[in-house]
Amino acid sequence: MSRIVALTERLGDVPITTNERTVKGKSRDAFWYSPLLKAQLENVRAEAVVSPRDEGELLKLLAACWALDIPVTARGGGTGNYAQAVPLAGGVVLDMKSMNRIVSIGDGVLVAEPGAILSKIEDETRADSGQELRMHPSTRETATIGGFIAGGSGGVGSVRWGMLREPGNILRLRLATLEEEPRLIDLTGDEIGLVHHSYGVNGIITEVEMPLAPAQNWVDLLISFDDWPGALKAGWEIAHHEGLWLKELAAVQGPAPHKYFARHRKYLAEGDSLLCVMAAPNAVAPLIGEAEKRGGRTVYRSDRASDEEKRSLPPLYHLTWNHTTLQAIKADSSITYLQVGTPADDPLGALGQIAERFPEEIVGHVEYTRAGGKTYASFLPLYRFTTEERLNQVAQELEDLGCPCYNPHAYTYEEGNRSDADPARLALKRETDPKGLMNPGKMIGWENPDYAYDPTGSYVYPGIKRAAP
Amino acid sequence: MSRIVALTERLGDVPITTNERTVKGKSRDAFWYSPLLKAQLENVRAEAVVSPRDEGELLKLLAACWALDIPVTARGGGTGNYAQAVPLAGGVVLDMKSMNRIVSIGDGVLVAEPGAILSKIEDETRADSGQELRMHPSTRETATIGGFIAGGSGGVGSVRWGMLREPGNILRLRLATLEEEPRLIDLTGDEIGLVHHSYGVNGIITEVEMPLAPAQNWVDLLISFDDWPGALKAGWEIAHHEGLWLKELAAVQGPAPHKYFARHRKYLAEGDSLLCVMAAPNAVAPLIGEAEKRGGRTVYRSDRASDEEKRSLPPLYHLTWNHTTLQAIKADSSITYLQVGTPADDPLGALGQIAERFPEEIVGHVEYTRAGGKTYASFLPLYRFTTEERLNQVAQELEDLGCPCYNPHAYTYEEGNRSDADPARLALKRETDPKGLMNPGKMIGWENPDYAYDPTGSYVYPGIKRAAP
Repeated sequence: MSRIVALTERLGDVPITTNERTVKGKSRDAFWYSPLLKAQLENVRAEAVVSPRDEGELLKLLAACWALDIPVTARGGGTGNYAQAVPLAGGVVLDMKSMNRIVSIGDGVLVAEPGAILSKIEDETRADSGQELRMHPSTRETATIGGFIAGGSGGVGSVRWGMLREPGNILRLRLATLEEEPRLIDLTGDEIGLVHHSYGVNGIITEVEMPLAPAQNWVDLLISFDDWPGALKAGWEIAHHEGLWLKELAAVQGPAPHKYFARHRKYLAEGDSLLCVMAAPNAVAPLIGEAEKRGGRTVYRSDRASDEEKRSLPPLYHLTWNHTTLQAIKADSSITYLQVGTPADDPLGALGQIAERFPEEIVGHVEYTRAGGKTYASFLPLYRFTTEERLNQVAQELEDLGCPCYNPHAYTYEEGNRSDADPARLALKRETDPKGLMNPGKMIGWENPDYAYDPTGSYVYPGIKRAAP
Repeated sequence: MSRIVALTERLGDVPITTNERTVKGKSRDAFWYSPLLKAQLENVRAEAVVSPRDEGELLKLLAACWALDIPVTARGGGTGNYAQAVPLAGGVVLDMKSMNRIVSIGDGVLVAEPGAILSKIEDETRADSGQELRMHPSTRETATIGGFIAGGSGGVGSVRWGMLREPGNILRLRLATLEEEPRLIDLTGDEIGLVHHSYGVNGIITEVEMPLAPAQNWVDLLISFDDWPGALKAGWEIAHHEGLWLKELAAVQGPAPHKYFARHRKYLAEGDSLLCVMAAPNAVAPLIGEAEKRGGRTVYRSDRASDEEKRSLPPLYHLTWNHTTLQAIKADSSITYLQVGTPADDPLGALGQIAERFPEEIVGHVEYTRAGGKTYASFLPLYRFTTEERLNQVAQELEDLGCPCYNPHAYTYEEGNRSDADPARLALKRETDPKGLMNPGKMIGWENPDYAYDPTGSYVYPGIKRAAP
């Protein structure tokens, strides 16, 4: 522990703690969605948690960590599912939640510190000028903007605006480097893509500039269908209509909605498959028309609900994205999930085959999104876990159906993204983190620049022994 | 003229005129873009112009026309290019411009009378609540909302919201029928599509309900390229990024911009091809980044222009859609245009072939749009007209390249839309207009229900002799 004592001395009044409870809590994120990650990461611990309150304090910390060779794992709300905030090599967890100021709100543009919570940002942008973020994860009330950018891909809003990585969805990122004399660097344009979704390995985000959209009084709708193919197809066709301004469109296969969506159960019949939709007020009537002519029944719409009824319900996006999984895990701890791509030209065919081949093991959940001018059906099904061996077998069978698995049961960048070592991200990391102290273990390529993607997800970071003795 | 005298008696104080100058002016629209239509329609005249001020006066007129068997051709701003407002069978022109009230402006929803001018609507919706129409034609300052819906397909805004016909882009239309006792009918959902783009043959629109979008401070940009394939490709790729909030994206082939865009000439080199863009403020920097890495040079941006400079320029959309053609015709009266579809999967290949095959005769102009979740490159090139025979030959050659021509040199619904007689539109017409008095001659199917599309566009409405003696 002596290096933490030395660190503390160098930090002056920058808040640092070694309180066991705090350290334990801040060394975890929501990796427990995965039984495999849970087994591997349960005992991983940082040595201390540091909470800088501004860029000056952050730079002081980074200089000290450089001098003392202490790993630094940046953490936002800890809502990630792939151990983005877990200190795989020990060292310190860099808790960014004190750097949470909103710097400015302009015409379509937000500048904020990375630790700002998404819902708090939107409270302020709505109050200031009727604006909101283009997209957010289902963990809107707990996730930070910096954590979302560092680890997220998209979310609620991606059915309209595409994925976070697309031009215009992140305008600027300011990074701190981890060097003898840490620097601040502003990235715009394509360079943003090197840091977004890099899980904090190649720069500590200190400020973000994000586009804002005009806030809408989104209407939550639940539209039920007798069967899964009907719900899937209706969702797919509706997702193609840009005249319907939607913020969210997801399909969940029966019997999951009635079984797991406890507070919405009263609206649902047992076997119902469901479309979960957030629509702008002017899209509600045409949306319902499109859904009903495809066999849908509108069983809930927030614009017709009483205030009391609305108070009894969580926001609709708490039924979508990884919250779909969360609702199921709450009811049944043997459940986890998969992240599966579907063939761009015929997702319905592949999804139908999957439903037939794995009737008990996989329960369908699709998020409709756009990317690069196309509509996608991203498949995030519930998965009834038995063994790792069976999981790998199922993943292989899905691949054979043309549906690649993006493994949410591995903690590395490469395994989660089906990627070889990424020379561009690593080149930036050599600049911003020459000692490799930022979130060690998250990028296999740093240890092994020749790493070629291995779908078994079997990589074990050698340094993890240190953090999980 | 006795039937007009009888009509006048029945109308009471509904304004009607037979003033020669007025009748001549109101019997025309912008068909003169086409030398073929100009030759055919130059002398077509109504017998009178009626200008009802409200639904009551309109119904009175329609009842009278029923009783007297007088054809009724509804007219908005007269900005259409295919004789939508031309009284092919004589009778009366129904001038809708006095029915121009804005009934209500709600959260994302406008209700208005059909004669309201688009720019006036937007002045009011902006002032009221910072809202604007999702789309408008390039004739925004003169076209009416009813005329746009009755004859338009899309326009400025379709790169974001898709075409007018898509669900959600028109919310409700109220129609008056032409019967012994005229009725008012409200259409929603799919039925809207029977009246939209039907040129007033199957119902007189008396009220429209349209979605509004949050108004943006659109930035006009001109981005020039050394060559046409470069401009085309950059536009095509940029159009796919839903993270860039654009209102308009068009490409115009050199030398047309320098030659015809007189007031913007100072920004352009002689051979420059051009992207004309309207971008939300937060899209400007990433848009410029994307364009410049594809060889573009930003030669004008309104957010950096002085007030004086801006005052000297027309709005950017006056360089797009059919205004591209208009700017060219102003400089060279031998020019007209074509409307050509391009292969959805490889428009650039086909457009490249066209540029090589018709180097002098066709000058490229592409409007990038979305429809049904896909991006399209709609080709509206300038065309140097010589003879009708040559025009048909060129159209055939374009077809052979996989680029179907939607004939803007014919005045019928079917010939312009490559359509057989449309049983659904005609069925509605039998209900709303059993005598066939609404805009006779616009729908071949009314005369000939077995009509099968003939690409030569050679149909001549037999009744036209009466209107053009």
